[in-house]
Amino acid sequence: MRRTTGPEIERLIQVLAKLPGLGPRSARRAALHLIKNREKLLIPLTTAMEEARDKVTVCSECGNVDTSDPCTLCHDPRRDRSVICVVEEVGDLWALERAGAWSGLYHVLGGTLSAVEGIRPEDLSIARLVERAGHEGVKEVVLAVNATVEGQTTAHYIIDRLKDLNIATSRLAHGVPVGGELDYLDEGTLTQAMRARRPF
Amino acid sequence: MRRTTGPEIERLIQVLAKLPGLGPRSARRAALHLIKNREKLLIPLTTAMEEARDKVTVCSECGNVDTSDPCTLCHDPRRDRSVICVVEEVGDLWALERAGAWSGLYHVLGGTLSAVEGIRPEDLSIARLVERAGHEGVKEVVLAVNATVEGQTTAHYIIDRLKDLNIATSRLAHGVPVGGELDYLDEGTLTQAMRARRPF
Repeated sequence: MRRTTGPEIERLIQVLAKLPGLGPRSARRAALHLIKNREKLLIPLTTAMEEARDKVTVCSECGNVDTSDPCTLCHDPRRDRSVICVVEEVGDLWALERAGAWSGLYHVLGGTLSAVEGIRPEDLSIARLVERAGHEGVKEVVLAVNATVEGQTTAHYIIDRLKDLNIATSRLAHGVPVGGELDYLDEGTLTQAMRARRPF
Repeated sequence: MRRTTGPEIERLIQVLAKLPGLGPRSARRAALHLIKNREKLLIPLTTAMEEARDKVTVCSECGNVDTSDPCTLCHDPRRDRSVICVVEEVGDLWALERAGAWSGLYHVLGGTLSAVEGIRPEDLSIARLVERAGHEGVKEVVLAVNATVEGQTTAHYIIDRLKDLNIATSRLAHGVPVGGELDYLDEGTLTQAMRARRPF
C-alpha cells in the first residue's frame, strides 16, 4: 500500500489492535481519538503506561500485580492471614476484591492444569501455595477456581497436595446467580442449586 | 473502597476506559493484559505512544495528522495537485486512502457547521480551504462530507464561498453500497440510486 502517514501512527494502531476488545478498525479509531485529544488523553495515558512499565511488579508472596512487593493486599495488617483464597488469574482476584467478598489473603496460580496445552503443576504457582499453606497460623484454603473442567481438575490436584497439612479446604458454592433467571440457567447449575437449597 | 493495588494501576485503568470502544470493565481487562504481557505489549505500546506524543503534528496545509509538516500526502510528488478532496475529519481521509479512492490532495475541515452546537465557519478550516483552492493550477474541489444534514449544510456553504473562483465543485455519488441489499436500504438512498441509474 501507498504510504499515507509516517510509520509512527501505523505502529501505534498496530499495537493498540492487540489489546483485548479492540480490533483493527477500533484501534484506528482509538489512535485517532488519542491524537486528537493530546492533552486530555494521549499525554495522561502515555504517562500512566510509563508508570506501569517502570513500577508494576508481581508480588513474590501471592502472585498479584502491584507497584510494591509484597503487594498492597499481602502488606495490609487488616487482612486475615489465617485464610488463603486460591484463584487462577489476577483478574479473578480483582473481581473478588471489587465484590468485597474476601478479607483474607490470596494466591494466584497463573492458570490451570491442562493436558491439552501441556500445562503441568510446575508451570503453576502450586509449590509456593503448599509452602504458604504450611506456614504457622494458616487454617483454611479456599479454592476459588473457575467452574470449568480445567479449574476443577486443578482444584482436586491442589487438595491432594495439601492433604498432609492440618488445614481445611473449601470451594465456592454453586447456585443461581443473584438477579439470575432460572429459565436462562443451565441444568447443571439448577441441579446444584436445588441440592444445596437452604431454609428461609 | 479499600485500596487493593497501588494508585498507578488504577490510574491506567481509568485512562484506558476513556478510549472509544473500551468501558470500565474492558479497560480493566486491557490493563491486566498489558501488565501480563510486559515485553510483547506494555513496552511496545508505551514506546509507540511516546513517539506519537513527541512527533505527531497537524499538517498546516491540509489538516491531516502526521509526523511531518507538510504531511506525507501533501509532500508526495505523485499526488495530483489540481484536485482537492474536502473531508470533515482525519478519519474520513484515512478511509478514502484505505480504499485507494483518491490520488489528489485533501483538506480536513475539522467538523461541520452546526447552529445547535454553535460551530461557525471560522471554527472550521474553511478560510484556509478557500485560500488553497485559489492557488494556481487547482481545477476541482470534491466535497466528500458525510451525507448528513450538517454535512450537506457545510457543503452548500463552502460551494458558495468558492463560487467566485474559476474551479469545478463536485460531491460523492449517492447510491446502493457495494454488497448492499436493497431490502435493508432507506428510501432516500433507493430514490437517489434510481434517479442516478446508469446504462450497463
